[in-house]
Amino acid sequence: MVKDVWRYLRAERANQLAALCELLRIPSISAQREHAPDVQRAAEWLALRLRAIGLEEVAVQPTAGHPVVLGQTPQQPGRPTVLIYGHYDVQPPDPLALWTTPPFEPTVRRGRLYARGAADDKGQLFIHLAVLEAWQRAGGGCPVNVKLLLEGEEEIGSPQLPPLLRARARELACDVVLVSDTHMLGPRTPSITAGLRGICCCEIVVRTAARDLHSGNWGGAVANPLQVLAELLVACKDPRSGKVRIPGFYDAVKPLPAHWRRALSETPHDDAALAKALGAPALFGERGQSTLARIGARPTFEVNGVVGGYAGEGIKTVLPCEARAKVSLRLVPDQSPTQVLAALKRHLAACAPPHARVSVRVLENSAPAVRLDTDFPELEAARRAITRVFGRAPLLSLEGGSVPIVAEFERTLKRPTLLLGFGLPDDNLHAPNEKLDLAMFERGTRTVALLLAELAAARA
Amino acid sequence: MVKDVWRYLRAERANQLAALCELLRIPSISAQREHAPDVQRAAEWLALRLRAIGLEEVAVQPTAGHPVVLGQTPQQPGRPTVLIYGHYDVQPPDPLALWTTPPFEPTVRRGRLYARGAADDKGQLFIHLAVLEAWQRAGGGCPVNVKLLLEGEEEIGSPQLPPLLRARARELACDVVLVSDTHMLGPRTPSITAGLRGICCCEIVVRTAARDLHSGNWGGAVANPLQVLAELLVACKDPRSGKVRIPGFYDAVKPLPAHWRRALSETPHDDAALAKALGAPALFGERGQSTLARIGARPTFEVNGVVGGYAGEGIKTVLPCEARAKVSLRLVPDQSPTQVLAALKRHLAACAPPHARVSVRVLENSAPAVRLDTDFPELEAARRAITRVFGRAPLLSLEGGSVPIVAEFERTLKRPTLLLGFGLPDDNLHAPNEKLDLAMFERGTRTVALLLAELAAARA
Repeated sequence: MVKDVWRYLRAERANQLAALCELLRIPSISAQREHAPDVQRAAEWLALRLRAIGLEEVAVQPTAGHPVVLGQTPQQPGRPTVLIYGHYDVQPPDPLALWTTPPFEPTVRRGRLYARGAADDKGQLFIHLAVLEAWQRAGGGCPVNVKLLLEGEEEIGSPQLPPLLRARARELACDVVLVSDTHMLGPRTPSITAGLRGICCCEIVVRTAARDLHSGNWGGAVANPLQVLAELLVACKDPRSGKVRIPGFYDAVKPLPAHWRRALSETPHDDAALAKALGAPALFGERGQSTLARIGARPTFEVNGVVGGYAGEGIKTVLPCEARAKVSLRLVPDQSPTQVLAALKRHLAACAPPHARVSVRVLENSAPAVRLDTDFPELEAARRAITRVFGRAPLLSLEGGSVPIVAEFERTLKRPTLLLGFGLPDDNLHAPNEKLDLAMFERGTRTVALLLAELAAARA
Repeated sequence: MVKDVWRYLRAERANQLAALCELLRIPSISAQREHAPDVQRAAEWLALRLRAIGLEEVAVQPTAGHPVVLGQTPQQPGRPTVLIYGHYDVQPPDPLALWTTPPFEPTVRRGRLYARGAADDKGQLFIHLAVLEAWQRAGGGCPVNVKLLLEGEEEIGSPQLPPLLRARARELACDVVLVSDTHMLGPRTPSITAGLRGICCCEIVVRTAARDLHSGNWGGAVANPLQVLAELLVACKDPRSGKVRIPGFYDAVKPLPAHWRRALSETPHDDAALAKALGAPALFGERGQSTLARIGARPTFEVNGVVGGYAGEGIKTVLPCEARAKVSLRLVPDQSPTQVLAALKRHLAACAPPHARVSVRVLENSAPAVRLDTDFPELEAARRAITRVFGRAPLLSLEGGSVPIVAEFERTLKRPTLLLGFGLPDDNLHAPNEKLDLAMFERGTRTVALLLAELAAARA
């Protein structure tokens, strides 16, 4: 029966990719108010699609923010239930000038589909829609009970999802949560993600005067807010050791367990090759930690953007009155986003010089880190499916990104989560020229189709 | 006869301001290529105006950049010759959101004319056009020979003017150069500017990867260019002492001469009142120097703008690959812009960490500082004119800004320059809500009208 499903997937691949491209054309950027109608449109497009492939109870569920799309296969008692989560919102596409083809005009080049959201996460959630369609049309129906939960606010921290999850905990009850929003270590190094970092974000605002000033007339007399901001950023991260300097920042961070140290040391990795692939003169990060540990197992402080003064052509000799930095901190298990933000605020207040007003605005997308169980039957089933499709057994990996809702799944649904992503490290997530490798898409559909059969067989 | 000229100025004031507003409506932003046609239009507007008020040899002189407008009163042998310099280009108006009324829609509120260029320098050069018109129409002709030189590139460092000055040194020969592009210490503290700081500018570019990266997937593994830029800015200016840290930066700086130390100490000034007027929590600058010395007599390092990463709404968890800072340094006498830029480049190269590529692009608007002679007959005549119009004798001041061409006047024409500005310290030059105090405009026209008569009488 899986063979029939695989055959259907091969035959219908072009049609399914054409449908994915329709979804990719909708600029569903959750961070920007002006795109709220596009986020809504993407939700409605998905609901239509779910109905078309035979799902039931399909609904575009309004929230205080962007909507959630729900749907399920015909539920049959006695079968295992899988809750599949994905998100249809995307990151802003700028800087636009650096895209080879426009972000919302999906384009295939050399076996890769380029578009904002191609991998994160429209392309990956589409793997599940493709598989469900194939089971419905060619496999005699889905062998397990699937519930779909597709949200439109992952890129802004899933603020509406936890209450919805709690309110609908019974409807969404399941045996396992399945999420494809991560990446494998490489096309020939299949992996299952067993850890994600947490995140918290804020904006630091520095003001030194009531209005912009002439840098000749006043330079030297009044502080420069961009200079003060630079001082604050350096006060937050040591230029030499790469360590975060916020007092107490590392207090809750425990040493990595031995089995994870071993797993990371056994993961194929080459610093020089990575630097070359990224175009970096050299890698840099916390002293005394390996690159894989720095990505998956150590917290960070990163400036995501700075604005202040003149950004146009040539020069404007202005002494600006304000400078802003958007900052995000990635967290590891046992670090509390709330406590980290409070510590950052205290640190900035302590470092603020008397000639500047420094304020911190917390951005609402905090999530704690998760480190998942690595020994449960559904993970074993996924291992078997990957091994068969990819031709080798998957490794376990710790990923540096965050999927804010995963911690909440564990807490509310009390079932394990399986992070079965089919992206690749060079997919340019959150950056220009985001892409999805079509070979990974194909293997993804084959793997998930097989996994659903394995889960059904395990229970039977 | 000056009485007739003053009477004409009073009678025609509304018409003259209406004409000034026409000029202010032209967005002649020299730094931005898209505005080159506007700069040309402003030049042509001025040429028409000069012809209308009876000037001769009026020409819009093309250069490799923006044009220069020339004109002169009917020249009569035996009379002193005054070369009046002004500039009709303006600074970019952004941030636009902070203007109360649009920058190129001149608006009068409570005796002040608000527009980009109102004080710097369209409004001030218009003082001279108003006076020449008044002498022509009501005073029996201008009592001295005036040559006008109006340029369109002051705000980008006057790159085309030095060669033009050298090529036309004989045509532009004069007894004194008169420039109104500075400010007085206050409406009740008239002053003549006797010193300007020099300037040199550059853009610092930091790159740490070939493309933007996901700050979760790569944060901790690859350096952040905004963080590296912050480190470099702190390496250029000490957070505590406010001193520039570029090795050799102060080598050529000599202590301020005793007569200037005395003059500054006798200038009315109040740090607390200034901080309040500027809306600054506290003033800040080089430790051990008074505020007036820090503005007029000490060099600075100022960040004029920083660009990097995400600047939009909400957050984008990007690890940008590039960050840029526009930087200007104000210089004092004996500092060489070329040497200072070379020292800055060396310092940044020495500070650049192995994980970043740091480059420096010099912006072409360098000028050395000038400190003018304070004892020549035309300065005495200006003192007398100011004393009569303002009701008190002017002080001498050292201004922090730069008028790049002034040093070149001294060098090429070998005649003294009189910096007779009628702006005020709170004119918001280079900032939103730039304004010209109309009472200062009126006193300026009366002062200059009288000065020309004084210069004629002194020679007669």
